Amino acid sequence: MIKHIRLSENFFFKQLFDRVSCTYSYLLADTETKEAILVDPVIDLAERDAKIIGNLGLKLKYSINTHMHADHITGTGVLKKLLPGSQSVISTASQALADKHVAHGDILEFGNHKMEVRSTPGHTNGCVTYVCHEQGIAFTGDTLLIRGCGRTDFQEGNPEILYDSVHNHIFSLPDNFRLFPAHDYNGILDTTVLEEKKFNPRLTKTKEEFVEIMNNLNLAYPAQIDKALPANKVCGLYNLPPEMEEKYKSVLKP
Amino acid sequence: MIKHIRLSENFFFKQLFDRVSCTYSYLLADTETKEAILVDPVIDLAERDAKIIGNLGLKLKYSINTHMHADHITGTGVLKKLLPGSQSVISTASQALADKHVAHGDILEFGNHKMEVRSTPGHTNGCVTYVCHEQGIAFTGDTLLIRGCGRTDFQEGNPEILYDSVHNHIFSLPDNFRLFPAHDYNGILDTTVLEEKKFNPRLTKTKEEFVEIMNNLNLAYPAQIDKALPANKVCGLYNLPPEMEEKYKSVLKP
Repeated sequence: MIKHIRLSENFFFKQLFDRVSCTYSYLLADTETKEAILVDPVIDLAERDAKIIGNLGLKLKYSINTHMHADHITGTGVLKKLLPGSQSVISTASQALADKHVAHGDILEFGNHKMEVRSTPGHTNGCVTYVCHEQGIAFTGDTLLIRGCGRTDFQEGNPEILYDSVHNHIFSLPDNFRLFPAHDYNGILDTTVLEEKKFNPRLTKTKEEFVEIMNNLNLAYPAQIDKALPANKVCGLYNLPPEMEEKYKSVLKP
Repeated sequence: MIKHIRLSENFFFKQLFDRVSCTYSYLLADTETKEAILVDPVIDLAERDAKIIGNLGLKLKYSINTHMHADHITGTGVLKKLLPGSQSVISTASQALADKHVAHGDILEFGNHKMEVRSTPGHTNGCVTYVCHEQGIAFTGDTLLIRGCGRTDFQEGNPEILYDSVHNHIFSLPDNFRLFPAHDYNGILDTTVLEEKKFNPRLTKTKEEFVEIMNNLNLAYPAQIDKALPANKVCGLYNLPPEMEEKYKSVLKP
């Protein structure tokens, strides 16, 4: 049986969940400097997240998007208001507005810890996977899900590109790296490179078979996409749907 | 900031979630001997759990209940059928049928790892908390929830007893022990002894104030209790509600 890499003593890690969109958010921190980052926060839970960060005595440096989500509005806009001094982050290729843009090969630092940016397009052009090599963990967004993967039938979806992203930039990580996706709908919280290389029902196929599977999923049009994309193009800072404008008016005031 | 104790290199840990009842289940294993235990499985997800255990190459020794749940049917009955050789476990004080009964001070072993049983009644008489001292983790069932606690207004609920259980047997653990409850409804996955000692809105009060709070919650009658208790009295092995009998007939045949 494969052994996980142990987290460093000064590395704090906390996974969080949104029951509505089944999104996972990840709070990472340096326990010595208290500098923290939050991956894929959800707007409806930004207050929960800010409270936890406060309770733990952490200082949020970056709130980070793995990509421009289509199923929920990111919490990165509200969080930079709730926790002044923090910055929103997204990839340059996403073409979304943010305080900081990242591209393949960039390194994000928080305290003494580092996170590498890997461009893993296919679900969207701007999808990235974030890798903390020393901790043996990676955040795969919607590129690779547990025993699944992100859709390739909207935004800039492309199954061939997604297949290559997973095989070249995620499956090439060590087998015992733990992978944390942006979503899971079955109550499973994490997986490993080895598990997905052995058991992923789609990505263990040949590229041709994979493309065939992805092109024949016949999924419904994403319910939240028309509300989520305009807001996520600005990292949830404005362009909220009308029913949310009022709620966040005081927080997001210019 | 408090530092978590690091998990031993040969200790495997995986948290799982049931979106319907918001129940957390916990898979623990010795990575060398492959012996595993599963805390608080849910019947509807027993097949998911058995598949994960199989994928990981683990051998389930015990499927364990923290108490006789009132909100869902335990998966321990189905799991002992799906994974022959495994045994169901619950406390003697719960008065439920199981392969193995535990009481305060007992030690459950899996591979080279140990888990201590602490009697923590108050939500029910049979509630226990399981503690893995070497790993700095404890499974608190419904006794202590994240910034909350289990109800004390049905079954054998008693707020004074619950208050003493938490203060004497959970808050007495080291501050940096991570606590994993049976449920959370806000997408938070774990907490620590220190966090709950500082921020639990109920259990930071005096015992008198706590009793007053608990006696005035005016909660609705639990929706699933009349279906869950008869089945959970036999660890989910039979006495299933009629609509589930058919589904599990072939698995649970005598």
